[in-house]
Amino acid sequence: MVRRRAPPTVEGWYALHEFRTIDWDAWREAPERVRERAITEGETFFADAIGVTDAAAGDSAVYAMLGHEADLLVVHLRPTTADVERLTRRFEHTAFAGFTEPTDSFVSVTEASGYSEKGREFIEGEVEDDSGLARYMRSRIEPEIPDAEHVSFYPMDKRRDPEYNWYDLPFEERAEHMDAHGDIGREYAGKVTQMITGAIGMDDWEWGVTLWADDLTDVKELLYEMRFDPSSSKYAEFGPFWIGRKMAPTDLAAYMAG
Amino acid sequence: MVRRRAPPTVEGWYALHEFRTIDWDAWREAPERVRERAITEGETFFADAIGVTDAAAGDSAVYAMLGHEADLLVVHLRPTTADVERLTRRFEHTAFAGFTEPTDSFVSVTEASGYSEKGREFIEGEVEDDSGLARYMRSRIEPEIPDAEHVSFYPMDKRRDPEYNWYDLPFEERAEHMDAHGDIGREYAGKVTQMITGAIGMDDWEWGVTLWADDLTDVKELLYEMRFDPSSSKYAEFGPFWIGRKMAPTDLAAYMAG
Amino acid sequence: MVRRRAPPTVEGWYALHEFRTIDWDAWREAPERVRERAITEGETFFADAIGVTDAAAGDSAVYAMLGHEADLLVVHLRPTTADVERLTRRFEHTAFAGFTEPTDSFVSVTEASGYSEKGREFIEGEVEDDSGLARYMRSRIEPEIPDAEHVSFYPMDKRRDPEYNWYDLPFEERAEHMDAHGDIGREYAGKVTQMITGAIGMDDWEWGVTLWADDLTDVKELLYEMRFDPSSSKYAEFGPFWIGRKMAPTDLAAYMAG
Amino acid sequence: MVRRRAPPTVEGWYALHEFRTIDWDAWREAPERVRERAITEGETFFADAIGVTDAAAGDSAVYAMLGHEADLLVVHLRPTTADVERLTRRFEHTAFAGFTEPTDSFVSVTEASGYSEKGREFIEGEVEDDSGLARYMRSRIEPEIPDAEHVSFYPMDKRRDPEYNWYDLPFEERAEHMDAHGDIGREYAGKVTQMITGAIGMDDWEWGVTLWADDLTDVKELLYEMRFDPSSSKYAEFGPFWIGRKMAPTDLAAYMAG
Amino acid sequence: MVRRRAPPTVEGWYALHEFRTIDWDAWREAPERVRERAITEGETFFADAIGVTDAAAGDSAVYAMLGHEADLLVVHLRPTTADVERLTRRFEHTAFAGFTEPTDSFVSVTEASGYSEKGREFIEGEVEDDSGLARYMRSRIEPEIPDAEHVSFYPMDKRRDPEYNWYDLPFEERAEHMDAHGDIGREYAGKVTQMITGAIGMDDWEWGVTLWADDLTDVKELLYEMRFDPSSSKYAEFGPFWIGRKMAPTDLAAYMAG
Repeated sequence: MVRRRAPPTVEGWYALHEFRTIDWDAWREAPERVRERAITEGETFFADAIGVTDAAAGDSAVYAMLGHEADLLVVHLRPTTADVERLTRRFEHTAFAGFTEPTDSFVSVTEASGYSEKGREFIEGEVEDDSGLARYMRSRIEPEIPDAEHVSFYPMDKRRDPEYNWYDLPFEERAEHMDAHGDIGREYAGKVTQMITGAIGMDDWEWGVTLWADDLTDVKELLYEMRFDPSSSKYAEFGPFWIGRKMAPTDLAAYMAG
Repeated sequence: MVRRRAPPTVEGWYALHEFRTIDWDAWREAPERVRERAITEGETFFADAIGVTDAAAGDSAVYAMLGHEADLLVVHLRPTTADVERLTRRFEHTAFAGFTEPTDSFVSVTEASGYSEKGREFIEGEVEDDSGLARYMRSRIEPEIPDAEHVSFYPMDKRRDPEYNWYDLPFEERAEHMDAHGDIGREYAGKVTQMITGAIGMDDWEWGVTLWADDLTDVKELLYEMRFDPSSSKYAEFGPFWIGRKMAPTDLAAYMAG
Repeated sequence: MVRRRAPPTVEGWYALHEFRTIDWDAWREAPERVRERAITEGETFFADAIGVTDAAAGDSAVYAMLGHEADLLVVHLRPTTADVERLTRRFEHTAFAGFTEPTDSFVSVTEASGYSEKGREFIEGEVEDDSGLARYMRSRIEPEIPDAEHVSFYPMDKRRDPEYNWYDLPFEERAEHMDAHGDIGREYAGKVTQMITGAIGMDDWEWGVTLWADDLTDVKELLYEMRFDPSSSKYAEFGPFWIGRKMAPTDLAAYMAG
Repeated sequence: MVRRRAPPTVEGWYALHEFRTIDWDAWREAPERVRERAITEGETFFADAIGVTDAAAGDSAVYAMLGHEADLLVVHLRPTTADVERLTRRFEHTAFAGFTEPTDSFVSVTEASGYSEKGREFIEGEVEDDSGLARYMRSRIEPEIPDAEHVSFYPMDKRRDPEYNWYDLPFEERAEHMDAHGDIGREYAGKVTQMITGAIGMDDWEWGVTLWADDLTDVKELLYEMRFDPSSSKYAEFGPFWIGRKMAPTDLAAYMAG
Repeated sequence: MVRRRAPPTVEGWYALHEFRTIDWDAWREAPERVRERAITEGETFFADAIGVTDAAAGDSAVYAMLGHEADLLVVHLRPTTADVERLTRRFEHTAFAGFTEPTDSFVSVTEASGYSEKGREFIEGEVEDDSGLARYMRSRIEPEIPDAEHVSFYPMDKRRDPEYNWYDLPFEERAEHMDAHGDIGREYAGKVTQMITGAIGMDDWEWGVTLWADDLTDVKELLYEMRFDPSSSKYAEFGPFWIGRKMAPTDLAAYMAG
């Protein structure tokens, strides 16, 4: 009956990943006037969200998805739950929303955890605000969404099975796993950017992983390599995977035109 | 073939957690007059439910949810199954209900179990009605819903697997687990309030956990810490997680306006 | 490669549990005349079914359910599959059916199994027809639905896992389990009535358990106690759980009025 | 890294099990003239399919199902995939199809496997065409659908788990299992008729089992007994179970009338 | 905490498998003029896709599926994610798309992995461009879709369970498995053609397997034999299976006519 030690964590912005399909039948049949208004209102909403005109801080992005589960992914990062909750409703009041249906979502908050000594020092406030470490940690919990061509998103859990029970490992062993896992990611620096968000108590999986890359095969290669690492091969359970391509608000008209 | 001893339990109010989505397409297209009537009837229903004008005792609350699975969560606590069953039908007769669809629900009853000696004394009626213990136990089974900004809800089971079989543990071992688990919760006193409801024989999971907190990261931190406790890491199976923000009935018009 | 011995069984009436939701939006918008006809035809159908005007023997009952999965549960017990299959179609021809949607069902047949010596004697025809044992056994396979306030229904399987394989236990061990399990049920005599129906080869779970009780916490307490019994804690897999409140056909108008 | 030996198999006709629900709301509201045309076209389609007017050989049957998952099951057996694929589309062009929705299906091919020496001799072409064995084997892969009152259908897999891995058992051990399993079936000769179809590479389960019997409790008893046989208790994984009652095309009008 | 070595991989064209059902009710009721336009636009879209008029390279094919999950499968292979993403939207702008609904999809990229020494040499660029090996490897990642009558598609994972953990096996052991597995496939050369696509980080399964054969029982026999090979019997987890028959764009009118 040993209770294992949880790592300290620090949270930043709340994150909402919203997946939507387009109702192409309705779009094909809509009069030009209705389409134009929908495009205008959609563009304005996305531009405002990306410009963060609705809150003190944050970022947003829009992606054209591959596969039938979703046509669009909208990612919102904001300081409060009120901010992200309101963005959903604001979108629903645009004429563009009428041509979309929400099909999935992930609610979480950016997170950095203190498995490393440096991480713990930052979380415990022992680091100068203008130090490189502090800037790095802040960039992880208040991240700027990179301008990469592709996004890949998936939620995940750590396993709690008899043989593979992450939550029953000693802290030091988990820290070593996290460090080795991070090493793989660091080999892809400059090619793949990641954002980790925590969802315990908030959504059905424990974490969300958002990856950005210009070349999608870099994401594939990174995740394939990680799959052979014990922290994945033994301790990870993965949810659905989604990929998409970055869209500017001004791309919306071309996107809807086919 | 040893049958383990079940803890005695005491039940209080029946609990209904109702999750609903808003039909935003219908709302956008509804005439102002229809919208106004919907808001008025929705507000009145929620105010009456919160005022418990329909029953001898209980409490109700409404939440604006994050994520696509639900827009609204309505929680009703009432002394009888007839009370909660009728509230659902009454809501369905409001004009507001026409703009919503039920998407999930959880049916349970507030529960306190006698794993501790004090719990057993209360359940077996050996405690003075006006003692602090009696008042505490009653507050758990006839709770007042706190006025916190956030709610988090999830259902859960105890595992019955060969290696991790909660129902095959001796009573004393389970009691120790429950005590240690409770210790974590007590560290969050004043920050996170919890309500435990039992659903064996009533819904698909064995228990529902409803947590309230102003700062949602307190819920996240509490549940993360608990996940490393053996009663969770080895013996708990979690269902879906939902979060929302408290709404007063008078907030409904602003909510629907985006 | 030992084949274990199956217990002999005796079957009685076919059982159909039909779960339906109400289309409240259509109901709110239906003209009074249409509603009246729907209520009249619904009442008549339920009264005829309960009166068993369609078959030589059997019983039926209607319940108002809690939770979003179903608003109504209709239970039909009849001597033949033709009887129960036709009842579904007859209901679909009432105007009331147009305000409902089928959402779930369970098809099974009342069953008594010969794990006990007395059970085997009855099944093998070695018992006088008018003996107490024969009357008791017949009451289990041709049961009268009790007039209790609440119903609880769930389907279940026996596990076939390496460590917990019910179907690989010797007959005698299973018989002991069944006997011990029955002892718990007998402690609730007068409070909780049960009906066991078998569904092997007929529906997705192996058995259905229908429990009736005036006080729903008696069902919860009974099932909680049973969960600590090895025949449940090690060998049972449970499906969804539903609860409802008994409705007379003449309650339908009040029910639909909210 | 031992690769186990697969049994040789011989295939006959392609099999399509199509499950459909009736849209009773649309039926109730359809004008008499539309209903009549639907019945006529439905009857004709079913009669033609049963008469195999569309192909060189095969058989078809229609069943009225119990439970909400399906109202009708149509089984088609035909020599080619083109034959069965076209039958679906032909049905969709009848006016009757407009009152139905496809809800499930199973695509497979009749199969006999060579676990027994006699089976292998037939498969390897070492048996006289007009011998009893050849006639028996052909009757399994080009079967005539029996005129029994009831049908029961379910798909199944053989397990590939560490302790219960069918595909890792030596050929001889599997052959013994198959032989013992067949013994149970043979005890029900004259009461229950079975058709085995293979679906590896064709549908989500590895095999489909279609059973016919006048008395449905014979199916239940047979499958209950088989469940205690190791080839089921340890090595089988079952999908959903469906049951229905045989319908002649000329029964369609009465069926739709309630 | 040993991290196993991932095989090097080389990727070719992005692959989109799109599954769609036909809305036969809408088709039956559509005026002849509307149907004709739908057929014309559908034919043109499919012919253009197969002709790869939209991109520098690639291939496409259309299949008539068996079973209720899908009526049509469209496979697109293209050099970029932009190419395949746009094809979906272009199809949605045809009048034919209005008679279809997307029901499933698989997003992946053709992949060859370097478990064999020859594979690694090609991937590491140590092979002459015009050698037989280079031509063979290129044919796997930039494949021409064969003109076979049948297609079979399924996604799969390698298991990460304690006893059967592919990702915890030493590289050499995995290489031996892959080699033995390939041997089975090679026995079906000329009868069954396969395409392997990787989906790690892109879709919910790790790989997609597309098989083509004139005689569908060759696919069944091949996969049955493979199921007894340890790389399948112990290490593979399979998703849904689909089968279909090749359709030329000019077959569309006949297909829709029943």
